[in-house]
Amino acid sequence: MEIKNIRPGDIEKKSFEIIADELKKRNITLIPGTEPIVMRCIHTSADFDYAESLYFSDGVIDRAIEALRSGADIVTDTQMAMAGISKKTLARFGGQVHCFMADEDVAEEAKRRGVTRAVVSMEKASKLEKPLIFAIGNAPTALIRTAELYEQGKIRPEAVIGVPVGFVNVVASKEKIMQTGVPCIVARGRKGGSNIAACICNALLYTASGRKLT
Amino acid sequence: MEIKNIRPGDIEKKSFEIIADELKKRNITLIPGTEPIVMRCIHTSADFDYAESLYFSDGVIDRAIEALRSGADIVTDTQMAMAGISKKTLARFGGQVHCFMADEDVAEEAKRRGVTRAVVSMEKASKLEKPLIFAIGNAPTALIRTAELYEQGKIRPEAVIGVPVGFVNVVASKEKIMQTGVPCIVARGRKGGSNIAACICNALLYTASGRKLT
Repeated sequence: MEIKNIRPGDIEKKSFEIIADELKKRNITLIPGTEPIVMRCIHTSADFDYAESLYFSDGVIDRAIEALRSGADIVTDTQMAMAGISKKTLARFGGQVHCFMADEDVAEEAKRRGVTRAVVSMEKASKLEKPLIFAIGNAPTALIRTAELYEQGKIRPEAVIGVPVGFVNVVASKEKIMQTGVPCIVARGRKGGSNIAACICNALLYTASGRKLT
Repeated sequence: MEIKNIRPGDIEKKSFEIIADELKKRNITLIPGTEPIVMRCIHTSADFDYAESLYFSDGVIDRAIEALRSGADIVTDTQMAMAGISKKTLARFGGQVHCFMADEDVAEEAKRRGVTRAVVSMEKASKLEKPLIFAIGNAPTALIRTAELYEQGKIRPEAVIGVPVGFVNVVASKEKIMQTGVPCIVARGRKGGSNIAACICNALLYTASGRKLT
């Protein structure tokens, strides 16, 4: 296969054109309004499964965008997602990203209680006194604890991005969060990841900024 | 689906057991020696495509492990991969991770020359005077430039992990690196990503440390 000559600034645009073409060929029509998110997930993973696995609760995209524009913070369960989220765009609106996974107090408490650091990280996040978006890309235990905290009335997130990946309790954790009624975006099934969590945040941030690719 | 009660320390082990079971059910036998890498890619992505898409040049795993044990550094093209690589394990052997993508001089030179920052980052990495492993999880332009630098005799990496993801020049960049004859691990096709780049590095690091999951 030949290497095409393409200007750096055009690579992303061209990628989105190819994705749109392939969705058409596959006879997949995305739910209006979800395109920037679904297409960015495909762009990040080259995996068209996301065209069909992503679930959006009613009104979640508008609500998340409004929250970001009003300066909401993002809480995530991995350093990788934190590294991938566009912190510059978020900061322009007044928000920041939190990841408590590497905090010493979190590690100590998790060990003492015999739970994952992800569980304790979400509890720590529940103490933040700002509008929050939870973006969970790794640990199903973080998503389960988020669902519980919501059910107990301890958090009222603007949105939960529930995209942990893997084989143990991942599918169940996603079912649980969808059942709570919290505004959420979920990659149903086993797939997801910190890259997907970051790219959904970025799709929301870019849309909030008025940047358009689709 | 019910949430299973499982001790935090057992989650990863259980995940690898499920992956091994499913590989068996799919009648997939992995190339001996590649299991820790292939299975960790599946663990990170929940995508069994990696069981068939990963290419390993002859002897690359032993060479990469030996290099890591001897203190080789890792060069990557994304902050996310840098965040995901186990820097603690790497540091125990004397190595560190470099990512030049956010460097101001890189951004300026890329703009001036009309190339991607990824290209300039790889050129900057070629000046490092240590044994190196290149782990490219995002930009095909980084992988293409790495192949060129190798062909020009400007770098002699211990191994190249070539797993960019996407739709423009991604497949071609992987074909190019495999043709150079450099020791390499490549996810053929469009799939890959910074999560895959990080997890291949970690699989090598864990194997180098004697930690076993498979």
